Amino acid sequence: MIDSERHLQIGSLLFEGLDQIDLTGPFEVLSRIPNATYRIYAKDREPVRDVRGLRLSPDATLAEAPQLDLLHVPGGYGQEALMEDEAVLGWIRDQAAGALCVLSVCTGALVCGAAGLLAGRRATTHWSAHHLLPLFGATAVDARVVVDGPMVFAAGVTAGIDGALTAAAQLRGDEAAQVIQLYMEYAPEPPFDAGTPARAPEAVSARARAGAAEITARREATARRVGARLGVTPG
Amino acid sequence: MIDSERHLQIGSLLFEGLDQIDLTGPFEVLSRIPNATYRIYAKDREPVRDVRGLRLSPDATLAEAPQLDLLHVPGGYGQEALMEDEAVLGWIRDQAAGALCVLSVCTGALVCGAAGLLAGRRATTHWSAHHLLPLFGATAVDARVVVDGPMVFAAGVTAGIDGALTAAAQLRGDEAAQVIQLYMEYAPEPPFDAGTPARAPEAVSARARAGAAEITARREATARRVGARLGVTPG
Repeated sequence: MIDSERHLQIGSLLFEGLDQIDLTGPFEVLSRIPNATYRIYAKDREPVRDVRGLRLSPDATLAEAPQLDLLHVPGGYGQEALMEDEAVLGWIRDQAAGALCVLSVCTGALVCGAAGLLAGRRATTHWSAHHLLPLFGATAVDARVVVDGPMVFAAGVTAGIDGALTAAAQLRGDEAAQVIQLYMEYAPEPPFDAGTPARAPEAVSARARAGAAEITARREATARRVGARLGVTPG
Repeated sequence: MIDSERHLQIGSLLFEGLDQIDLTGPFEVLSRIPNATYRIYAKDREPVRDVRGLRLSPDATLAEAPQLDLLHVPGGYGQEALMEDEAVLGWIRDQAAGALCVLSVCTGALVCGAAGLLAGRRATTHWSAHHLLPLFGATAVDARVVVDGPMVFAAGVTAGIDGALTAAAQLRGDEAAQVIQLYMEYAPEPPFDAGTPARAPEAVSARARAGAAEITARREATARRVGARLGVTPG
């Protein structure tokens, strides 16, 4: 927990083709952290489209960001291109070096990996990409939220809400996080028990895996290339 | 469950000062319903700000909307003004008359109430506004999701995800909803048990109630005025 008098800078990275709830789930938490400035940063000020078409606008450019205390990196299909975008990776690397906390959501973990932040870390990501974490030198942990040093890793998509509440508690204490949780009425009751491949009916898992096969293959090829370049992929 | 060959029109209402996750939580589900067109509708095409500043843009105006099969009405602070906005209320009323399903999230229920959709219904809404439902002739039910006829009511904020999965299953069957749930890795693990006033620590509930007092008082005054005009407020 950080001195409550210290004003915090909190920022989310926005990019074309992200999965919107990787950003908007944590937004609901991070934008309510007491005594903090929350902003959304992107390469330029143009609106972007999420993978299903939601238009989202940044507040400022990467270059305009101060040193952030909490950096939030979402995932989604568009993260694949980011894994070889040196301008974004360099910004993440520089910000992470001075941040109290880096919150990775879903396949945002692979972007963090491409920025060199995963080597030697325990981490998690979306179930479809979990096996790719070792390509960046990380140990893949089967958990919804994994905390390792300054890194908070949330698993896929909606896990970002759980990860953001965890990060909020780290910065401002449990009670502050609980007030936000209560405001959000976050006492989830999914109508089905189908949120992980192990728990979903087999036919559902098969359909979801088939739907993710192409992007997963592309992610793997890119992650292998980038991991080898970084020298973190185990031989 | 509706004939899978029938193309569905699905739309969310966007307005200034909504709570963004009331829209973006269901977006994640609704935009993935098979054989459907999903769009966001607003009075005009200008971007709006959510209550915490997120800029969201509509896809089309209310006037451009076809008859929707599923109408989604989010809530948030900005819903208070909508309760007396006849242009929006008339649109909701007309759409609801032809829709298969109306998904109300959070205090979107009060907007539906002002449109006359709550009279005689069982309903739910955000915990801070639950006691206002009878002003629109509804029976307030203490549940996260309440289904009554074509209406699906989700409780506060994040309950919209549960409500949207329920609506998706109604339209396209359980398996289609489960595939979406698995994609979203929606197997929530909140780090605290603080998502309802009854479950949160007393100090947390007190702080959250105090924070909601002013908007709740304003909502009540407006709901009384509108309910009386509609003739649905019990004497």
